[in-house]
Amino acid sequence: MKKNFRLIIEYDGACFHGWQIQKDLRTVQGEITGALASITGQAVSVIGSGRTDAGVHAMAQVASFICDTRLEPGTLQKALNGILAKDIVIHDCREVSLNFHARYSAKSKTYRYRILNRNLPAALYRGYAWHIKKPLDLGAMTAALPHILGRHDFSSFEGTGSPKASSVRHVTAATFNMAEDGYLAFEITADGFLKHMVRNIVGTLVEVGLGKKTPEAVADILAAKDRSRAGATAPGHGLFLVRVNYEPSPDP
Amino acid sequence: MKKNFRLIIEYDGACFHGWQIQKDLRTVQGEITGALASITGQAVSVIGSGRTDAGVHAMAQVASFICDTRLEPGTLQKALNGILAKDIVIHDCREVSLNFHARYSAKSKTYRYRILNRNLPAALYRGYAWHIKKPLDLGAMTAALPHILGRHDFSSFEGTGSPKASSVRHVTAATFNMAEDGYLAFEITADGFLKHMVRNIVGTLVEVGLGKKTPEAVADILAAKDRSRAGATAPGHGLFLVRVNYEPSPDP
Repeated sequence: MKKNFRLIIEYDGACFHGWQIQKDLRTVQGEITGALASITGQAVSVIGSGRTDAGVHAMAQVASFICDTRLEPGTLQKALNGILAKDIVIHDCREVSLNFHARYSAKSKTYRYRILNRNLPAALYRGYAWHIKKPLDLGAMTAALPHILGRHDFSSFEGTGSPKASSVRHVTAATFNMAEDGYLAFEITADGFLKHMVRNIVGTLVEVGLGKKTPEAVADILAAKDRSRAGATAPGHGLFLVRVNYEPSPDP
Repeated sequence: MKKNFRLIIEYDGACFHGWQIQKDLRTVQGEITGALASITGQAVSVIGSGRTDAGVHAMAQVASFICDTRLEPGTLQKALNGILAKDIVIHDCREVSLNFHARYSAKSKTYRYRILNRNLPAALYRGYAWHIKKPLDLGAMTAALPHILGRHDFSSFEGTGSPKASSVRHVTAATFNMAEDGYLAFEITADGFLKHMVRNIVGTLVEVGLGKKTPEAVADILAAKDRSRAGATAPGHGLFLVRVNYEPSPDP
């Protein structure tokens, strides 16, 4: 009997070529697909809530797959965690209705981008933040945020290579928080994200923080719908997929 | 003209065989000694506040060295950070009086030990905590702390191999804090630490937390002055040297 399973997955992006399965490259989707094949003996199609780029981390990526198995979700979870390497941990596995689809059912996602803003890099916890030496003007960066809130065509922040049918996305939250030790955390929630969208927004906001662009320039960049107007793409290793939101069932 | 320099050093212990210089092994003292030889052309003797074991991290290890150089401390710091690998960062370099000695001038040290207490390990930030699956009784562990506070002979918590002249140490603070996401932090301050002392105390407190020992048993273990009575040595990768305290000049 076919069952639909939903996974909640934490991963460290450092040693992955991103989420999406690719021939001869280590990817999160590839590792999970391989582990499920070992456990169930079936070629299972694992659907993620969306791709994450090479190097990008996830606290709670969501995936679903349909499989004909007698295994209980808890058994599947233990078997997966037993097979997978230490940089992937399955936090939850449960049976969901057959119409749940990790990508199509997702209502919104939240990403976090971490910046270490101080003169010296960190020796500890390397690879979990973008190190920026010059002091960032957090006031200016925060003043730019209202311009990206709301429903916009985000073409100016879309990476080349995989155009979507529409470049319009609805950003419902965008905040900066200063943590201890010079760590700055940017959080953004939207109904969906274009390729490199968070990293291109962060790269642009950092240019605002360095005084290379005004906060108001962000509105002009959006209106231009021209990728060349925005800042550089921030490195992948500072980015974390924090949460994928579904309705009606809330996810951890 | 001979000058005495003091360094404040952050390091990630994962890829080091500890602090102390050893032939053919990568150590923090060895790396810094090598970098100083490259910069000054001299065989400089680098004195640490104390050794840290293989795998143990430091937020602010302190070292001093006497050197005949015209280089300014700021220049030395930049040159060191330019040469050293990413897992060592020199946070401060300054000239101090010739009678400052990183080891003998130290009044006390503070260590932190991190435990991840939940069923599943973490994929992110691996290598910075000891993962313990079974639930720990934080109340029992905290109840054991008064027994280790004060001046005691800590023979029962001393690792074999490098006995000190005296096993008496004065513990001035010991606390547990529960952080977010199931991380537990143990912090301990003393005028000095015996070999493996923090890790052996943590191993014993964890046995108290698991109900294998009572909080009161810790007093008996101390009184016995017998290493075989205490718990196992906690793994090195959960341990951080947080701070070395000197008088009269306070250090960061």
